[in-house]
Amino acid sequence: MAIRTADQYREKLYKMRKNIYMGGELIGRDDPRLKPGLDLIAESFERVNDPSLKGLITATSHLTGEEISRLCHIHQSSDDLLKKQDLTRQLCRKAGGCIQRCMGIDALNAISVVTKDCDDTFGTEYYPRFVEFMKYFQANDLVGNCAQSDVKGDRSKRPFEQSDPDLYLRVVEKKKEGVVVRGCKAHNSNAPFSDEIIAVPTRLMTDKDADWAVAFSIPADTPGIKQVVRITTPRERKHIKTKHFFGLADSMTVFDDVLIPWDRVFLCGETYFASILAMLFATYHRHSYTGCKPAMTDLILGAAALVADYNGVGDSSHVKDKLSELIATGELVFAAGIAASVKSTPANSGTHIPNIIYTNVGRYHAGVKLYHEYETLADLAGGLPATLPYEDEFFGDQTRELMEKYIMRRDGVSAEDQHRLFRTLSDMLCCAHAGVAQVGGLHGGGSPIMEKIAIRNNYDIDSCKRLIKMHCGIET
Amino acid sequence: MAIRTADQYREKLYKMRKNIYMGGELIGRDDPRLKPGLDLIAESFERVNDPSLKGLITATSHLTGEEISRLCHIHQSSDDLLKKQDLTRQLCRKAGGCIQRCMGIDALNAISVVTKDCDDTFGTEYYPRFVEFMKYFQANDLVGNCAQSDVKGDRSKRPFEQSDPDLYLRVVEKKKEGVVVRGCKAHNSNAPFSDEIIAVPTRLMTDKDADWAVAFSIPADTPGIKQVVRITTPRERKHIKTKHFFGLADSMTVFDDVLIPWDRVFLCGETYFASILAMLFATYHRHSYTGCKPAMTDLILGAAALVADYNGVGDSSHVKDKLSELIATGELVFAAGIAASVKSTPANSGTHIPNIIYTNVGRYHAGVKLYHEYETLADLAGGLPATLPYEDEFFGDQTRELMEKYIMRRDGVSAEDQHRLFRTLSDMLCCAHAGVAQVGGLHGGGSPIMEKIAIRNNYDIDSCKRLIKMHCGIET
Amino acid sequence: MAIRTADQYREKLYKMRKNIYMGGELIGRDDPRLKPGLDLIAESFERVNDPSLKGLITATSHLTGEEISRLCHIHQSSDDLLKKQDLTRQLCRKAGGCIQRCMGIDALNAISVVTKDCDDTFGTEYYPRFVEFMKYFQANDLVGNCAQSDVKGDRSKRPFEQSDPDLYLRVVEKKKEGVVVRGCKAHNSNAPFSDEIIAVPTRLMTDKDADWAVAFSIPADTPGIKQVVRITTPRERKHIKTKHFFGLADSMTVFDDVLIPWDRVFLCGETYFASILAMLFATYHRHSYTGCKPAMTDLILGAAALVADYNGVGDSSHVKDKLSELIATGELVFAAGIAASVKSTPANSGTHIPNIIYTNVGRYHAGVKLYHEYETLADLAGGLPATLPYEDEFFGDQTRELMEKYIMRRDGVSAEDQHRLFRTLSDMLCCAHAGVAQVGGLHGGGSPIMEKIAIRNNYDIDSCKRLIKMHCGIET
Amino acid sequence: MAIRTADQYREKLYKMRKNIYMGGELIGRDDPRLKPGLDLIAESFERVNDPSLKGLITATSHLTGEEISRLCHIHQSSDDLLKKQDLTRQLCRKAGGCIQRCMGIDALNAISVVTKDCDDTFGTEYYPRFVEFMKYFQANDLVGNCAQSDVKGDRSKRPFEQSDPDLYLRVVEKKKEGVVVRGCKAHNSNAPFSDEIIAVPTRLMTDKDADWAVAFSIPADTPGIKQVVRITTPRERKHIKTKHFFGLADSMTVFDDVLIPWDRVFLCGETYFASILAMLFATYHRHSYTGCKPAMTDLILGAAALVADYNGVGDSSHVKDKLSELIATGELVFAAGIAASVKSTPANSGTHIPNIIYTNVGRYHAGVKLYHEYETLADLAGGLPATLPYEDEFFGDQTRELMEKYIMRRDGVSAEDQHRLFRTLSDMLCCAHAGVAQVGGLHGGGSPIMEKIAIRNNYDIDSCKRLIKMHCGIET
Repeated sequence: MAIRTADQYREKLYKMRKNIYMGGELIGRDDPRLKPGLDLIAESFERVNDPSLKGLITATSHLTGEEISRLCHIHQSSDDLLKKQDLTRQLCRKAGGCIQRCMGIDALNAISVVTKDCDDTFGTEYYPRFVEFMKYFQANDLVGNCAQSDVKGDRSKRPFEQSDPDLYLRVVEKKKEGVVVRGCKAHNSNAPFSDEIIAVPTRLMTDKDADWAVAFSIPADTPGIKQVVRITTPRERKHIKTKHFFGLADSMTVFDDVLIPWDRVFLCGETYFASILAMLFATYHRHSYTGCKPAMTDLILGAAALVADYNGVGDSSHVKDKLSELIATGELVFAAGIAASVKSTPANSGTHIPNIIYTNVGRYHAGVKLYHEYETLADLAGGLPATLPYEDEFFGDQTRELMEKYIMRRDGVSAEDQHRLFRTLSDMLCCAHAGVAQVGGLHGGGSPIMEKIAIRNNYDIDSCKRLIKMHCGIET
Repeated sequence: MAIRTADQYREKLYKMRKNIYMGGELIGRDDPRLKPGLDLIAESFERVNDPSLKGLITATSHLTGEEISRLCHIHQSSDDLLKKQDLTRQLCRKAGGCIQRCMGIDALNAISVVTKDCDDTFGTEYYPRFVEFMKYFQANDLVGNCAQSDVKGDRSKRPFEQSDPDLYLRVVEKKKEGVVVRGCKAHNSNAPFSDEIIAVPTRLMTDKDADWAVAFSIPADTPGIKQVVRITTPRERKHIKTKHFFGLADSMTVFDDVLIPWDRVFLCGETYFASILAMLFATYHRHSYTGCKPAMTDLILGAAALVADYNGVGDSSHVKDKLSELIATGELVFAAGIAASVKSTPANSGTHIPNIIYTNVGRYHAGVKLYHEYETLADLAGGLPATLPYEDEFFGDQTRELMEKYIMRRDGVSAEDQHRLFRTLSDMLCCAHAGVAQVGGLHGGGSPIMEKIAIRNNYDIDSCKRLIKMHCGIET
Repeated sequence: MAIRTADQYREKLYKMRKNIYMGGELIGRDDPRLKPGLDLIAESFERVNDPSLKGLITATSHLTGEEISRLCHIHQSSDDLLKKQDLTRQLCRKAGGCIQRCMGIDALNAISVVTKDCDDTFGTEYYPRFVEFMKYFQANDLVGNCAQSDVKGDRSKRPFEQSDPDLYLRVVEKKKEGVVVRGCKAHNSNAPFSDEIIAVPTRLMTDKDADWAVAFSIPADTPGIKQVVRITTPRERKHIKTKHFFGLADSMTVFDDVLIPWDRVFLCGETYFASILAMLFATYHRHSYTGCKPAMTDLILGAAALVADYNGVGDSSHVKDKLSELIATGELVFAAGIAASVKSTPANSGTHIPNIIYTNVGRYHAGVKLYHEYETLADLAGGLPATLPYEDEFFGDQTRELMEKYIMRRDGVSAEDQHRLFRTLSDMLCCAHAGVAQVGGLHGGGSPIMEKIAIRNNYDIDSCKRLIKMHCGIET
Repeated sequence: MAIRTADQYREKLYKMRKNIYMGGELIGRDDPRLKPGLDLIAESFERVNDPSLKGLITATSHLTGEEISRLCHIHQSSDDLLKKQDLTRQLCRKAGGCIQRCMGIDALNAISVVTKDCDDTFGTEYYPRFVEFMKYFQANDLVGNCAQSDVKGDRSKRPFEQSDPDLYLRVVEKKKEGVVVRGCKAHNSNAPFSDEIIAVPTRLMTDKDADWAVAFSIPADTPGIKQVVRITTPRERKHIKTKHFFGLADSMTVFDDVLIPWDRVFLCGETYFASILAMLFATYHRHSYTGCKPAMTDLILGAAALVADYNGVGDSSHVKDKLSELIATGELVFAAGIAASVKSTPANSGTHIPNIIYTNVGRYHAGVKLYHEYETLADLAGGLPATLPYEDEFFGDQTRELMEKYIMRRDGVSAEDQHRLFRTLSDMLCCAHAGVAQVGGLHGGGSPIMEKIAIRNNYDIDSCKRLIKMHCGIET
């Protein structure tokens, strides 16, 4: 079976060339600081045998007929999209946050569509290459990072207008054995934990941007690739440990004249399809957000409901009102993902594309509500997440008794449980991890302004104008 | 074929007993003031042959196998619900507003579920009665009004606690031939245009509320029924006429000791199922709102886009931003309806019930956004809808030329078209009809506060609490 | 004393030349359809002796030392501005809406500033003219309309770029005895009830717009002026009458080659000061909104609180929450007006100018909250304002008893009082008047987008950038 | 002169008894971890000679006539309140955040009012004691912490109903030399940096809560006081240092049977005045928030404007729109504070009390907008604050060049300046400090729900009901 164990995943990573720069050092993937993030990806391997995910976490490869991880699957139907959305939500609930493994496969689904269409239009040969690569990817149950966002320089200028042409990733040389690329992709969330870096364009491109219209997949330790990484974890615990202690990482992935062999190149100069690819990856990735964001809402909702209970005000009118609002937020997003799946359309390659309007309104709603969800949690949690004394004081001889006395809230809930909840709330609201979750939740997969653009560019506003003209009796 | 023509529908109504009180008179259904509202219902008969609605506006009766109007259909599948939602949107777009005919069939779907379950539980015999009635309803292609909202008296008190027990509709006597009911149902939107009044309970009921736990269907001119009616229409036009000139009506339907024969009684004293019925009608009706509200958004969107065009600012950033927001509002609501349809469940009667969470988050979102949609339209339309001179001034000799000169906006759009648009905008924003659309759009089918209650009562908040406990390491 | 009685005001108007076009007719100011609006203005004369307004409704003219109506006063101090704001709120509360008489004096205050500054800069002689006119205006206790908004044609073009140059009011000829102007001003709310039309520019002007840079005051029946008028009133009552039955009017005021004598011309070609005047009138008028909008909130708040009481839910948590929000809205706006008054600055003419930032944030907040206030009122009022039967049914023999029975809500409140409240709520929410109040409340005095522009153009954003640079350690 | 230097302030603190528990240790005020927070308070001493604050940062004591720090002043006029508000804003701008020294003097102003009124009512002798204490406080230019929030246990219960009576601070014994108190106050922001702990009640109290109705001031190292402290600082910098590196601290201040001498006791058992004191401290402190929150908005605004500039999109429409909204938020809050100052009323003690409605609507608006302000900053800053590599990578040999190349945005801004800005943005959005600022900004001085309660309890809603009754013609 083409599914790896967590250990197999780890072993492969540990053997990779050191190309991660962090805190002034060049480190390997076995550096202990990377462990919390690596453990998170490993979960997606460990959960394969979770009975509650049976039928959800695996799929049948349309290329080989083998059972594979759904996280390596090219979606062949509405049902595949529904299952991917549902799986994403389930995994994120269990992990307590983003599971980081959707972006690679989101990129590959988009590439499957675009390479076929490009071949059909221009007679290129990207799609057969892609199919071969995809078989390898599935057979080895790989983890992919999608490197989309360029560093972008002056935001008011297109790639070809930048003072420094490298501010968008570009082809600097075409050779017999492949293309040489230079540039830097930012915000690459799981890059240090990935087998492959899958690069796709980040924006609409004009004819003048041909050198920047490039897509490929390449092992994450290929010579010339330098990952400049920052990690984010909840505050480390001394005493109150929980089973899961996960982290995130983000890489500025520098391509310092990296040679990409031709069999790994999926677009090279086709600006029209580069634009489509940028948009399609966004669509697949935003569809993934319709699964992960409701999971985040579930966590916020659970925490908000629990702290209200512990405070003895779980039944008060304003609390119930706010919980309802949280539910509505999460489930509207999830509903949009369902609608996008049900109303998906097959591309020429057979890959199903989620409906672009529903996908975008779902991700949009998640984005515009995100800070308000944190506000609601902070509102119901009160000030203690911000002022909670250190763990030591709850365990040290001089203060333990006092802390256990004064943290008490509703009768029948132990001081330890009250403490555990507020320690977690402090992580959710008042640590670096919380800030990263906010900013990431706003911008990841595309900021609300990007979804608004996608919505209006794809909506039939003219039919609504005709409608109102009819009701006005306007005939021109 | 069991489908009436508009003329057949009108003829039957014109023969009904006069029991409509309006403007100090007792009038028949042929009173000209009722025409705009009656025409609207008639549309649903006339559209049966609209090719763009083929396959949507009819359905196959599960009781007789005959082709019937979908507006008389008991939903047998997710697909039926998807089609009902889609049909509702299409018809409302064409009618330029609420088509008024969903409520009757929404009530009947709810009754189909509850009568079967009640029979299964208590050994009553409501369901066979209901099936017989339903055959009659479909065979005659009837229009039903759902009389749900009681006048309710003191809102802080239950039915049995009110000073006047009649403030909720109740059984005052049980006879051999049927039950005698007394009370008054309010906000009965299409009552004067309906063949049947279908009464269902309006709220959760306790054991003490048994006399108020009653449901039935009865011809709208049955002795003892008095409809106290108010109509609402856009301002009447003198010169600029449009094909459609529709109106709404609302009835306070008084039941002045009305005898309901037993074969028309569908619940009588079963408080548990009365509560379920109240909730289920709301669910079906809110599901209908996921079809009609997006149509209202389409109209607002079209008008907003068109006026921006005419003003010459259709491409400006803030306009596009606001159009995107409107699209997101309408399509999130529609997406919720799709999700509710896809995730529907069959009841014991075989009737499909839309998912209650998705239905409610959809209607909720429509409700909380409604006034903001009007704000957006007003924003883009500017002040003229409020200050537009009368039609006469655009046609009279003394002023026509001046009006045509000074209404001009973007070149290439005629004065007449500008005028037509602003006349319609004035109707949409600044006439009684507009206010009724706002209040009705907020409260119809249940105010946002009702959906919030439905949402939290039906959501598995506990699973979210358990989830956060797991992440906190709390085991109790 | 230079204060007229209401009768004196009416008499003067009745003698004016007929130049009002309405419903296809040319009518005089004594036309009964104009009465509700005229009565509203008359209130400001009648209230002069209201003891609760003593010290507020009159002021001492800085030109003559005489006691005059404050509605004819040029503000000489912060205290004057505070009193004008307070008076506006008191009068609007008593009138149940906009009192219509602020715009004229707002325009004159702005002109007092600009004419002096223009004279000081360019050596023109506008200010002495203005002072003479002002003495006349005060001595005769006149009512002024401010005609600011041009019809504007294509909104993406400046005055000089329009296809038809008359789409902004302009000087078509300069003569010895005065200037001849042509164009049309829209949304002139009290024009048919005004003694004088005071025209000011509507936007920033460039050098090329010199012909459009004109300001003047002229009797409202001057030859060539044609007022094309639409009136708005609450629904007329048959039985339940209230003391006040006021209306609004709006005029498209056409200047069909009107000669303005030089002693009435206050700017003519000075584009820089025309721009300043446009902005300054907006500032004074928005400052008036900080008085009138809180009064509107008071009315909405009172209605919302009373209906919740009558419904028996006045003490429920969600009701109290919404009342608090309404209070916060109204009082933030009023607070902004206080701050603007206290932080006012004297111009060279001695006239005090309210602080432009506080004035604009106040009007902005009122604008962005307006539809939400109506939503709150609709929310608490429920559906009955939209579906209330006609008055006849509450008084006719056949239905009176039923209506009185079924309108009952909380014990202890008579059916008549319940009816009176819902009749008023229906006017506030569901009649043409309500829609006009919404659109007018959004756009009157400048839409929120205009205040946002004023805010950012006048705010020292650079000082905030320098601040953050200091904290970043950025020295350039 | 009664004003200390920063050194004098520090020296006194360093001599205090060790009673701070942090990270498992008992530490003194000279512990280096406390330095960033202590430096912040020290600023308020150092700034006394800042010429830009002349006339603002000092005041004349009404008790002694001496020049004192305004941060030790009892407000004698509207002007005093205006200056306190303005000073707070200026100091917070310079400090880059909360200056922590308002709470002590806010508490003392409230006590000045209540002790006088209590004496007048009950013949107690608190006010003379208070005056003596105040002279000492001013003469020594002390820093006070206000310990208000009790830990509160079960939020649905009053003090006397709690399982453990100590969950609200209470008098356990009255002795000849004073009272003995026990309990714990939470969220005591500047406690470890304060000379005095000033305890006031946290809520309305009934007759049964007399033991909990206590107020006093006592040196922060009095025997029995244990401060359990957590500190919060921005991430420490290695390379890019800024002049200011401030921190916050919060103490759970345990009163483990602490003897309070009678001359330091300001209420003891007077539940009515305890309730008033709770409300009055909140009022003064919320008035302070009308100064500090606009400063926070200034910082967010400056950062948002600067990052948009650096990104090359400073002039785009959506950026300008968002900046306008930020300005409106900050200035509405500031305006409310101005109005509260101008409309202040003198108490019997002569102390001016800011208007309670304006104070609360100001703080309320700040609270409900706070998360949205962070959202706006995150929106304009993009994803980089969440993913910015460590400082080391910007300075280490292996990566410096790449980092400087790829952080470039608009031409003309150096890589270092871009880096400095994003480093600060990362602190503002994505570090523990940011989360604490959010939660503190929401709850500090009272959560929005507390202000809503204060607003409706103090507003004349009845006058608005009477108003609407008048317009309805309702006479009862």
